[in-house]
Amino acid sequence: MANVAVLGYGVVGSGVVEVLKENSVSISRKAGEEIRVKKILDIRDFPDSPDRDLITHNPDDVFEDDSINIVVETIGGVGIAHEYTRRAFLKGKHVVTSNKELVATHGPELMKLAKECGVNYLFEASVGGGIPIIRPLNQCLAANEIVGITGILNGTTNYILTQMKREGKNFDEALKSAQQNGYAEANPAADIEGHDACRKIAILSSIAYNEFVDSKNIYTEGISNITLADMEYAEAMNSVIKLLAISKKVGDKIFARVSPAIISKNHPVANVEDVFNAIIVKGNAIGDAMFYGKGAGKLPTASAVVADVIDIVRHIDSNGRTVWKRKDYNNIIDINESTTRFFIRVSANNSEEAENYIKQVFGDVEFIKAARDSYKDEVAFVTAKAKEGELVSKKESLKASASINDIISVIRVEEE
Amino acid sequence: MANVAVLGYGVVGSGVVEVLKENSVSISRKAGEEIRVKKILDIRDFPDSPDRDLITHNPDDVFEDDSINIVVETIGGVGIAHEYTRRAFLKGKHVVTSNKELVATHGPELMKLAKECGVNYLFEASVGGGIPIIRPLNQCLAANEIVGITGILNGTTNYILTQMKREGKNFDEALKSAQQNGYAEANPAADIEGHDACRKIAILSSIAYNEFVDSKNIYTEGISNITLADMEYAEAMNSVIKLLAISKKVGDKIFARVSPAIISKNHPVANVEDVFNAIIVKGNAIGDAMFYGKGAGKLPTASAVVADVIDIVRHIDSNGRTVWKRKDYNNIIDINESTTRFFIRVSANNSEEAENYIKQVFGDVEFIKAARDSYKDEVAFVTAKAKEGELVSKKESLKASASINDIISVIRVEEE
Repeated sequence: MANVAVLGYGVVGSGVVEVLKENSVSISRKAGEEIRVKKILDIRDFPDSPDRDLITHNPDDVFEDDSINIVVETIGGVGIAHEYTRRAFLKGKHVVTSNKELVATHGPELMKLAKECGVNYLFEASVGGGIPIIRPLNQCLAANEIVGITGILNGTTNYILTQMKREGKNFDEALKSAQQNGYAEANPAADIEGHDACRKIAILSSIAYNEFVDSKNIYTEGISNITLADMEYAEAMNSVIKLLAISKKVGDKIFARVSPAIISKNHPVANVEDVFNAIIVKGNAIGDAMFYGKGAGKLPTASAVVADVIDIVRHIDSNGRTVWKRKDYNNIIDINESTTRFFIRVSANNSEEAENYIKQVFGDVEFIKAARDSYKDEVAFVTAKAKEGELVSKKESLKASASINDIISVIRVEEE
Repeated sequence: MANVAVLGYGVVGSGVVEVLKENSVSISRKAGEEIRVKKILDIRDFPDSPDRDLITHNPDDVFEDDSINIVVETIGGVGIAHEYTRRAFLKGKHVVTSNKELVATHGPELMKLAKECGVNYLFEASVGGGIPIIRPLNQCLAANEIVGITGILNGTTNYILTQMKREGKNFDEALKSAQQNGYAEANPAADIEGHDACRKIAILSSIAYNEFVDSKNIYTEGISNITLADMEYAEAMNSVIKLLAISKKVGDKIFARVSPAIISKNHPVANVEDVFNAIIVKGNAIGDAMFYGKGAGKLPTASAVVADVIDIVRHIDSNGRTVWKRKDYNNIIDINESTTRFFIRVSANNSEEAENYIKQVFGDVEFIKAARDSYKDEVAFVTAKAKEGELVSKKESLKASASINDIISVIRVEEE
């Protein structure tokens, strides 16, 4: 019998309890023994919950109970969740979490402490909700050198972009719709500004390249500036706009970026819509493998947490315990040193003059016409591939031209 | 140090040796110790191979060498591969294989013997080439009851169907192109008649539902009757034709089928083209998760084999050892008892009469017009969903009508 304590009886925590009960027969069979939730720690009472008798407000009931060998941390954040995770390790308890912020921020130290304490720290649910991605990266693709990762890692922003594209809503309307459907929080900044996707690509990259990739060093840009007009131009390019999280191993450094990107409709993730996530992993033997599913939600995320719990019960003394090493230098390539193509829209008094000026500044560009002619006071173009730093300075020099009034949008164009 | 013997130095076997050498540093790190190929058993000589010194023709060099603890079986078939697998187990050696035929045919007995001998029998590479699917089913989705699987499991047929759709080649031309590109064998029957996909869905279903699903009992239909005209009709339905392998848990029985199917372009696997495979797993907690990648090929398949080898080295004494149980009855639902919709094309002298007759026989049907009018002597329609048995008998009665000359095609229509 394995005894589990769940810390935080919120959406994911209560889902974990539900999945463990609902699928208890098959879970016990797969784990080789029964898995029971012994305690649920939360500051709140849940008098109407079927699990009310398991609720405790006293952390000692969890940490001082030696029969509890696995702690599920679904509190979130880097405050009390951090303290409790350390305390669990020091008491010889394995920890399973869905807390991407904690893993992305204190992963190296927590993994080190877990190893020292001879316990496991598993966090499959921290990326991609229910989509199996961390275990596949660690195990299934273990024979590969991972050379790159491309993903739609945030369901909220993907839902918003889908609503804009499919329903013609503008950003604010689409965001409101996401909030009404429970896909976005009242304060949606972490999602729409890309921070959530950034933490996730940092975690995946740390696993893939076996060194800590600090989310603080990753260039991150959200989707709040994306307009329906941008989407019409993308359509004219037979493309769509997605919030892409990308990382690549480049020599002994890592390129990583989170930003909106224009991708061809033939790109494998172009059709990933609504709250779905998709992650493409490029390995030197397998080529591209893609993992797709709902990136969030109570039961999908809970099922990923429970899979980690089962894994611990199955291999209780034998998990390989990786520790991400922090580099004493910034291992992320400066965004200005990375290469890309930009899609740029400018408003222009005289489009012919503007086009000539653009060609002078950027050289070989591809001009884009949107289908509707409501954009006749605009010039839109895609640059050749070049270092971001150069493109940024060239972009600045657009403003110096008398024929160009303003830069309306700048969006990266990503090839497969 | 873990010592590996590779049985069969063909495409996959030589790929295994290549991946183990190429990625040896990261593989050793992940496995926790060095993994070395000590012997390669093959009846052939390979004087020009860099691995020629490891080649042996004598099985005793593998089975009587106690320092070899893992055997990679990449011989294929159910003859000598079967014998060697048993011998390895009896000598206390773990076996990793890509041999879907052996697993689908003798899986229950081999798993039982492995368990009795205290060793593992792993076969990630037997389904989906390099795509991680067996380990995710076993581990990542362990918290779920698996309720259904839908997949494009055969790269050869998917390549042929893609060539037909995209290049307008007919079946024979597309098959020839597949053979020229090394995607189809000289005798392509196992692929194009669906047997390969059938073995794979049998293996996946056995894992998912935890009981042996015998491929012999699965209704299997290949793609050799699919024509360009069928594809034009599919296009008119905003759909595509794919060879789908499907299984579902229905009460205490299992529905399983391999057949061409017309699926909407919005279906998650509709855009899976060329030799790519995709597998959708439906779990009661996660909902749909999809796994996508190259379903065959030397290095992708080899990387799946090596992942299993690494897993054995990591958890050498602790893997859960499942044994599929053979049922003493046929646990597969009779195809005639399963429900479907059919797309049916008939040639007709008088289409109005034919349509009336069809409505009499089938009731509520949807007539389909292809874009080109070269099909004016035809009537095509999609039936309502009903038991296959009823539809088959109704189909027979079409032939009784004076207005209908012949049944040209019958293809199942599959919804999401």
